[in-house]
Amino acid sequence: MDQNTLLVKMAIGPWEAHIKRATKLFDEFTDEQLLLEVAPGRNRVIYLLGHLTAVDDSLFTLFGLGEKLHPELEHAFIKTPDRTVAEIPSAQELRQYFNEVHAKLNEAFAKLTTEQWFEKHTAVSDEDFAKEPHRNKLSVLLSRTAHMSYHMGQIALTNK
Amino acid sequence: MDQNTLLVKMAIGPWEAHIKRATKLFDEFTDEQLLLEVAPGRNRVIYLLGHLTAVDDSLFTLFGLGEKLHPELEHAFIKTPDRTVAEIPSAQELRQYFNEVHAKLNEAFAKLTTEQWFEKHTAVSDEDFAKEPHRNKLSVLLSRTAHMSYHMGQIALTNK
Repeated sequence: MDQNTLLVKMAIGPWEAHIKRATKLFDEFTDEQLLLEVAPGRNRVIYLLGHLTAVDDSLFTLFGLGEKLHPELEHAFIKTPDRTVAEIPSAQELRQYFNEVHAKLNEAFAKLTTEQWFEKHTAVSDEDFAKEPHRNKLSVLLSRTAHMSYHMGQIALTNK
Repeated sequence: MDQNTLLVKMAIGPWEAHIKRATKLFDEFTDEQLLLEVAPGRNRVIYLLGHLTAVDDSLFTLFGLGEKLHPELEHAFIKTPDRTVAEIPSAQELRQYFNEVHAKLNEAFAKLTTEQWFEKHTAVSDEDFAKEPHRNKLSVLLSRTAHMSYHMGQIALTNK
């Protein structure tokens, strides 16, 4: 196995492990408990569920894999803080979106070649990529894994 | 850019960025504020400062780069929960250990070749490594970066 292929395995393994752990973490909350704040005055767990879904949903367009599955989440869960948007999807819908987005992403990822992982994402120009070849898809995946870890640390604090 | 530089940029870049962000985060706390809990009844920030230092300090032995700088931290900050050990180092000492451990690690990392990053760490047997070549030093570094992210998410919640 060459180093590039190995590196892809090294990034996708932890990404999938984080999704599994996050799913398990959210499953430990009842729909009602999802409305709890992770700490007094901070984001509610349901907001972080929507946030992680919306942020990862953007990988479809960023990687040129298709359209976002739930572009409607961006406003309530990325652009604005928790409790700004009065009507958000139900807990059940958000759980389903989280699973759907990650399942479809992983399906699409399985078809990417090692070379494609090392190609630029759509938010980098050809010019910039020539100078900064580390701004590839694999780097974005590593960063999304750390992002999930960041919020999982917070969700784990919730007093329920 | 050769493959060597690219891999270094993709894994070590985020690792260094996380250390910088964590340092900045801890610097925003006075010594007294480090005694605050990240959320009611949860770890104090000072415990997480010691914890991140102790966990990353183990990379010296895990990567065969030498001895831990502060093996005495393991008991109070890894093996036992916060507030178990009555006498822990002062806030100033712990800040210094955090900086020292990460500065020395980065010095040692700068001397590693790409081949060495893809070699096994000391906790894997030759036999297992032959079957699981992703259990190399670079994987551990990615995992430590996500670990730092996890606790930074928590520290960011502290009401100070």
